[in-house]
Amino acid sequence: MAMESVANSVQLPPLDNPNERAAVGEELQLMLQDLIDLSLVGKQLHWSVFGASARGVHLFLDELVEEWSELADVVAERAVTLGFVPDGQSSAVAAGSRVEPVVVRSLADHVVVWELGRRVAAVAERIRARLGSIGGADLVTQDVLIRVVGTLEKQQWLLRVQLGEKA
Amino acid sequence: MAMESVANSVQLPPLDNPNERAAVGEELQLMLQDLIDLSLVGKQLHWSVFGASARGVHLFLDELVEEWSELADVVAERAVTLGFVPDGQSSAVAAGSRVEPVVVRSLADHVVVWELGRRVAAVAERIRARLGSIGGADLVTQDVLIRVVGTLEKQQWLLRVQLGEKA
Amino acid sequence: MAMESVANSVQLPPLDNPNERAAVGEELQLMLQDLIDLSLVGKQLHWSVFGASARGVHLFLDELVEEWSELADVVAERAVTLGFVPDGQSSAVAAGSRVEPVVVRSLADHVVVWELGRRVAAVAERIRARLGSIGGADLVTQDVLIRVVGTLEKQQWLLRVQLGEKA
Amino acid sequence: MAMESVANSVQLPPLDNPNERAAVGEELQLMLQDLIDLSLVGKQLHWSVFGASARGVHLFLDELVEEWSELADVVAERAVTLGFVPDGQSSAVAAGSRVEPVVVRSLADHVVVWELGRRVAAVAERIRARLGSIGGADLVTQDVLIRVVGTLEKQQWLLRVQLGEKA
Amino acid sequence: MAMESVANSVQLPPLDNPNERAAVGEELQLMLQDLIDLSLVGKQLHWSVFGASARGVHLFLDELVEEWSELADVVAERAVTLGFVPDGQSSAVAAGSRVEPVVVRSLADHVVVWELGRRVAAVAERIRARLGSIGGADLVTQDVLIRVVGTLEKQQWLLRVQLGEKA
Amino acid sequence: MAMESVANSVQLPPLDNPNERAAVGEELQLMLQDLIDLSLVGKQLHWSVFGASARGVHLFLDELVEEWSELADVVAERAVTLGFVPDGQSSAVAAGSRVEPVVVRSLADHVVVWELGRRVAAVAERIRARLGSIGGADLVTQDVLIRVVGTLEKQQWLLRVQLGEKA
Amino acid sequence: MAMESVANSVQLPPLDNPNERAAVGEELQLMLQDLIDLSLVGKQLHWSVFGASARGVHLFLDELVEEWSELADVVAERAVTLGFVPDGQSSAVAAGSRVEPVVVRSLADHVVVWELGRRVAAVAERIRARLGSIGGADLVTQDVLIRVVGTLEKQQWLLRVQLGEKA
Amino acid sequence: MAMESVANSVQLPPLDNPNERAAVGEELQLMLQDLIDLSLVGKQLHWSVFGASARGVHLFLDELVEEWSELADVVAERAVTLGFVPDGQSSAVAAGSRVEPVVVRSLADHVVVWELGRRVAAVAERIRARLGSIGGADLVTQDVLIRVVGTLEKQQWLLRVQLGEKA
Amino acid sequence: MAMESVANSVQLPPLDNPNERAAVGEELQLMLQDLIDLSLVGKQLHWSVFGASARGVHLFLDELVEEWSELADVVAERAVTLGFVPDGQSSAVAAGSRVEPVVVRSLADHVVVWELGRRVAAVAERIRARLGSIGGADLVTQDVLIRVVGTLEKQQWLLRVQLGEKA
Amino acid sequence: MAMESVANSVQLPPLDNPNERAAVGEELQLMLQDLIDLSLVGKQLHWSVFGASARGVHLFLDELVEEWSELADVVAERAVTLGFVPDGQSSAVAAGSRVEPVVVRSLADHVVVWELGRRVAAVAERIRARLGSIGGADLVTQDVLIRVVGTLEKQQWLLRVQLGEKA
Amino acid sequence: MAMESVANSVQLPPLDNPNERAAVGEELQLMLQDLIDLSLVGKQLHWSVFGASARGVHLFLDELVEEWSELADVVAERAVTLGFVPDGQSSAVAAGSRVEPVVVRSLADHVVVWELGRRVAAVAERIRARLGSIGGADLVTQDVLIRVVGTLEKQQWLLRVQLGEKA
Amino acid sequence: MAMESVANSVQLPPLDNPNERAAVGEELQLMLQDLIDLSLVGKQLHWSVFGASARGVHLFLDELVEEWSELADVVAERAVTLGFVPDGQSSAVAAGSRVEPVVVRSLADHVVVWELGRRVAAVAERIRARLGSIGGADLVTQDVLIRVVGTLEKQQWLLRVQLGEKA
Repeated sequence: MAMESVANSVQLPPLDNPNERAAVGEELQLMLQDLIDLSLVGKQLHWSVFGASARGVHLFLDELVEEWSELADVVAERAVTLGFVPDGQSSAVAAGSRVEPVVVRSLADHVVVWELGRRVAAVAERIRARLGSIGGADLVTQDVLIRVVGTLEKQQWLLRVQLGEKA
Repeated sequence: MAMESVANSVQLPPLDNPNERAAVGEELQLMLQDLIDLSLVGKQLHWSVFGASARGVHLFLDELVEEWSELADVVAERAVTLGFVPDGQSSAVAAGSRVEPVVVRSLADHVVVWELGRRVAAVAERIRARLGSIGGADLVTQDVLIRVVGTLEKQQWLLRVQLGEKA
Repeated sequence: MAMESVANSVQLPPLDNPNERAAVGEELQLMLQDLIDLSLVGKQLHWSVFGASARGVHLFLDELVEEWSELADVVAERAVTLGFVPDGQSSAVAAGSRVEPVVVRSLADHVVVWELGRRVAAVAERIRARLGSIGGADLVTQDVLIRVVGTLEKQQWLLRVQLGEKA
Repeated sequence: MAMESVANSVQLPPLDNPNERAAVGEELQLMLQDLIDLSLVGKQLHWSVFGASARGVHLFLDELVEEWSELADVVAERAVTLGFVPDGQSSAVAAGSRVEPVVVRSLADHVVVWELGRRVAAVAERIRARLGSIGGADLVTQDVLIRVVGTLEKQQWLLRVQLGEKA
Repeated sequence: MAMESVANSVQLPPLDNPNERAAVGEELQLMLQDLIDLSLVGKQLHWSVFGASARGVHLFLDELVEEWSELADVVAERAVTLGFVPDGQSSAVAAGSRVEPVVVRSLADHVVVWELGRRVAAVAERIRARLGSIGGADLVTQDVLIRVVGTLEKQQWLLRVQLGEKA
Repeated sequence: MAMESVANSVQLPPLDNPNERAAVGEELQLMLQDLIDLSLVGKQLHWSVFGASARGVHLFLDELVEEWSELADVVAERAVTLGFVPDGQSSAVAAGSRVEPVVVRSLADHVVVWELGRRVAAVAERIRARLGSIGGADLVTQDVLIRVVGTLEKQQWLLRVQLGEKA
Repeated sequence: MAMESVANSVQLPPLDNPNERAAVGEELQLMLQDLIDLSLVGKQLHWSVFGASARGVHLFLDELVEEWSELADVVAERAVTLGFVPDGQSSAVAAGSRVEPVVVRSLADHVVVWELGRRVAAVAERIRARLGSIGGADLVTQDVLIRVVGTLEKQQWLLRVQLGEKA
Repeated sequence: MAMESVANSVQLPPLDNPNERAAVGEELQLMLQDLIDLSLVGKQLHWSVFGASARGVHLFLDELVEEWSELADVVAERAVTLGFVPDGQSSAVAAGSRVEPVVVRSLADHVVVWELGRRVAAVAERIRARLGSIGGADLVTQDVLIRVVGTLEKQQWLLRVQLGEKA
Repeated sequence: MAMESVANSVQLPPLDNPNERAAVGEELQLMLQDLIDLSLVGKQLHWSVFGASARGVHLFLDELVEEWSELADVVAERAVTLGFVPDGQSSAVAAGSRVEPVVVRSLADHVVVWELGRRVAAVAERIRARLGSIGGADLVTQDVLIRVVGTLEKQQWLLRVQLGEKA
Repeated sequence: MAMESVANSVQLPPLDNPNERAAVGEELQLMLQDLIDLSLVGKQLHWSVFGASARGVHLFLDELVEEWSELADVVAERAVTLGFVPDGQSSAVAAGSRVEPVVVRSLADHVVVWELGRRVAAVAERIRARLGSIGGADLVTQDVLIRVVGTLEKQQWLLRVQLGEKA
Repeated sequence: MAMESVANSVQLPPLDNPNERAAVGEELQLMLQDLIDLSLVGKQLHWSVFGASARGVHLFLDELVEEWSELADVVAERAVTLGFVPDGQSSAVAAGSRVEPVVVRSLADHVVVWELGRRVAAVAERIRARLGSIGGADLVTQDVLIRVVGTLEKQQWLLRVQLGEKA
Repeated sequence: MAMESVANSVQLPPLDNPNERAAVGEELQLMLQDLIDLSLVGKQLHWSVFGASARGVHLFLDELVEEWSELADVVAERAVTLGFVPDGQSSAVAAGSRVEPVVVRSLADHVVVWELGRRVAAVAERIRARLGSIGGADLVTQDVLIRVVGTLEKQQWLLRVQLGEKA
């Protein structure tokens, strides 16, 4: 949350639009909180899922959680690289994330896929909406976010097709 | 948070003291929330640390976070095995965890070690205090928690010795 | 089935209650036969399963069979370590195991999960019931069995949740 | 499609019935085209499948495609070893393969399994019908084809059992 | 070939220019067909090559085929992610691909490299020509295609230099 | 034990002599039971062996058991592929296997090798005696059994030479 | 040998019976010295063994030495975790270990196994005798020692059976 | 340094602005020389570093050198792909690189980090300044350089934070 | 060279035509000597090759030598399994092998390929000529030899195509 | 300590100066004891180190201990190869080693490095002083010791530079 | 270039002839510069090679460059171990290396091999000429350089034979 | 057997005593033939061994054969590096090797070890006797041979101790 003096000794990357450095940092912080929250919701569903496809979904969720944790790390490290320390702790995530919590009980496999699919789509869409303006400030950060969006949209497809018979 | 009907079709493990099933579940939920919170605080410090030892601490934090995530998974899966679905989402963790948040800014390496050491010791101590009574209800759960405490106390030592010159 | 002279040259482990050495050996033999029988039933179902989830169940069964074979080995080696040679051959398993056989024909995936779940739960419950008294004779054997029970109960959960929609 | 002069410098394998060299080459070419076509149809279904079992089928298809590509390579290399260059390009496959194309749209998981099962069975049956006469000309080529048929028939079983509830 | 209802339950990625969704899908389908065709031509040459450098070219072709298959998968999955099911079967590839077939007979190593180099260059050039307009519709798809073009152009260099003495 | 309707939806492999399908299935079942029994006897000896060569024999037995389990799986899966579900459970193995049990006590290393060698030779000989007639019905099944016999006969040699000084 | 100030900055684990902290540390030190001494004796025998089974014993000794070194490390790190620095240097081991040295010359394989078996049994028995009282002070340390005893007793069995013909 | 005839036989990639082909090649050559020089300076510091953090810095330098060598290779291969052979030999690097040499003697760890941090920042900044204009000529080359800049800026952060206490 | 008493304790495999046991052993011995000789000639050429393709041929020769050594081992072990100890020592190979030696001096790459190709073809042809009669005595040995012939003929193709420009 | 009869059956390596065989053996024994003692001191420091660099030193010590154990094994096996059984047990090491013990308490990281550096330098220097005379008796043993000295002197450098700021 | 005070705290290795310490350091510096320069020339040729063997040479060059980089590191670390910091930066290499640069343009494969072969031979010869005198000062450094010469001379052979047809 | 013109294009390594180049080549050829012969005798014994230790010896022989093949390759490549092509074919080995053949029949394990031990010792002794004079001509070749002798003498020890009870 602070643009600090750690960056004094060696200069920070000179963004195309240095005035937007703090703004980019704040955007990355929001994305980070969404990604951390996705990984916690994913783990929650990993423990809660039941139904004939439960085992497949249980294992798939661990792959997704792994991908979200890695993307979160990439986003946070880009923020720090730009001189902004984002907040990824539980209270900040609970306050700042735009990912809805799920109900705490056993959940049928198709419900799990449905609930998760909507949340992944929403996060992807929010980040996609910011690609253009961030590209104006910093092409390197934009490239990081294109990778994040591409990964989330592919997951969205993989979840979407599992809903076929229920839709 | 609910002792549900998922367990109807195949019976649940017959604890030595079945009346304490819900109580054990609630205890495991608290421990889960502490462990998830440790992993989020650890990641936060991974991004925030600076100082001559920053790189070593940065890498060590990833090992610790990995261990906490694995322990959290083991604890949560034991709870579900006993028929209790714990809540590990961000708002539940923010509300239920007893781990203090850290300040959001760049933090010197020795401060990072000090802050983390205190939190690990506190979590280990809280779980240790429950080993005896949980052993009375279920030896298998007790064995899981002995592993958790042993791991946390070893980390506590590895952190403690890094503070030597500052103490 | 025999407490033999192999142990003459180097003494056997001095149990807390040496009078119970043969009794512990016999208990371990029963558990061994149950575990071997589980692994044969599991393989049988691996070949017999059909239905929309057949492939997932087919692969999951190989993981379970692997775990049961390894647990059987650990239990048998603990018996021999205590000076008791258990019988794990087909006729002894057929006679001594308390695991029900399954019908020999193609079986629907949900039937497979249901039949297996009940058998795993029964074996886990029988071993759990002996944890206390064996702990009185030998803490090391108890520790082996706590691992066996913990593994079986986790499998019981993983099978139980796959029955959700059928229950 | 041509028995060429590449083989002049070092003689070709002396088949039991050298007069059938070209005939064996042509048969291998047909089998090659069927196997390549199976791999393209398999990839098509990998992208098109939807339904509750979509993820399992999606992953299973990649394993099958891998096996068909490897078998196709073995078959083609046996043909070239005998001095015959087979045609495995798209127009030759489109013209020569006896595998039916699938409709180009999203397909439900059970439809995917059904469509694939029929095609695998047909290819296996066609190759099996030629085992005897090819064995008369060349035992080594027969051995290659026995491996191909054995692999396809095992896949046929793995697909067949997934249709249980729909049949 | 169809923009279908699979996408109803969870919304599709909101392209910058949603009106161009079908157009982007059709372009990806053409690129997919070119890449599949390259992989079939590459395999054909793998079996047909002769000459002093035959072994090196034979092995290099397998690396190229592997890369084209992977790129084809990435392109097809991006199309499906956008809601468009492309056709990658043999008759569609034979009809839609713009890659010329090669003659079916043993081919000298330098001819193989020459024929392949021209085809790779042509495919790279066609995709490069579409980078700009696709970037206007969807930055994520553009990023996928930049990777495809970069890979093909590097292959083009690796092939080009092998022609040195013949040019 | 039953030729069932699982095979209705996609046809079974068309054996050279379809009338012998059930007969082949019954033969495979007998071989399966012998192989499973060998693996249980092998594990029994793994736990019972003593003598100066005990460690070498103990480790060698695990390799043999691994090979028998894999061969048993291959044989059973060939039976199911042909439409016949074999019985590999403990009571069926105890009843149907022609492998003699060993005495349940510590056994000297040379006795272990001798007892095992005789049993492996007997199983190999029984299967070898059926190679010809099964080849008449199905070349693919014959090929599976040639691999089984080849493996058992090699083991027979490896065991035989260890008896040298005792013979 | 000293309960020092390293533990000031972050508190030590609160044992069930904190008054026994030093006592537990001293016991762990004795066990550590026995385990280090076993590993040095084992290495000595690794270099000295001769006889028909020399190679097998030579290799087995390296596995045992590896296990003892790892157990020694676990025991020493538990001591330091509790705030006690144990002495594992050569003079302390020579003075404190209760493991008898072996004679320094070539030793026949069966003598090596016999000498080692007695020493392993003695160390296991001494640690087993302390399991109960240590469990009263600290369940986590007890769990470490149960693992040590279980490992040593299994080694004792593996050595014991190699003596069969000599006993 | 020369736009040569190697490219005659198969045409070069058609840049968006073909007139800038030589200009892009020259820019890539400068970047290549900077990256090679960074790797030589990094190795020099790997041998020269001393101080309490010397070992950590020594190892970190090898990771950085590895990354710079890989980036240099990617940049050089992109230049050759475009038809331009860059000069990466010692005299060209000594003449063309804009990276300052370091003094040749033992250097304290914090001095090493400081000297390296400044050089990495300078190289990153120079390449970043060219991203826009190169993107106008060739999107594929721009994508390569975005990866280079992103990697260098992340290293810049990792070095910057190690200077905390000295700044 | 001797049908010995090693086989007394456990009976030998009962060949279809036991009278041919010695004859089969002698044939396997000849094949073994050819394969060992190929591997020595291959190594010789590995050290002697020169020319523009020298490095590729040098590496390819090591792969071929590896394959011949493995085939030799399989052939020899089949002979011993049948009760016949073959002679694979240098004087027996020098006397019995039908592989011509090569001249001892540096040899041009195309000469190396040509010399080797002729020898591989000759060995393959000799073994192929015996497939039928050996199959009459023992299907398992025939299966081993089909694998040998298949491997040699594939190598023959890989060598043959490298001669293209010289033929 | 004894030049024994193990060497009777197959003669010992004929040293250049066979009269010095026992002398070489005794020298190797002293070096062995120094190396074992270094490994015990290294492990002791692994458990005792504290300070800001504690973790780096703790991990580095395990690498050094691993290297010393491997060098000790090489030295001891060379002695036995020459027919001399050296004594590497705790009392012999305590008596014969010239490595000073360290004080048993927590030790600051820079003290650990300093204490270790001096001991490594002393051992290296003692062995270096014997290189010439041992080379006169046996070039193979000299080669082993050159490797030992080279490894120790490199460690000496790696330790020396970590002392920079304290020196 | 400086014999510095880093060596004060722990003494340097006592060379046989300590007066030659600086001289040995200077010699190692020259060898280091030659080896670094070889690796830069090798990389240059890796990018520049064309011709029918271009791919093989391109890949071989990466293996050579890897070996030269590793040898350079070994040589530099030996210098620092002896207390001399060598200069391996671009300007020092450009000034001190005796390796001739190559012309900067596409180079035919046989020219590349020829140019490289001469340079490798020259470096090997220069180092070989110093083996004797360095052995007089320090056997450990001599051993390092014997390894360097052995590696370079083997490369010289591998390059030499590729020139056969052109010579 | 010939000092040829392959070495014209790039000069050969300048030995200390160039007049001895051919002599060194001839010596290396003799050593090569001994090592190849050892590997053939070792393989022969691998197939012939029987007795209680047969399996251990059978496996150990494969390790030895692997080591001899690798040493033979190193020796031959050193000869070629010096410009001398040695003869390693079966007739040259049969004629030139000084290794005695073994009798062709089943051989008891202790006989195998005895026969092999004598042959290894003889080869080691012959090479050791040449170390000095070869060192006078070429230190690099001497270093290769010191490695060969060291390896053979270690094997000699490992074989010698297995004879203990028989000696």
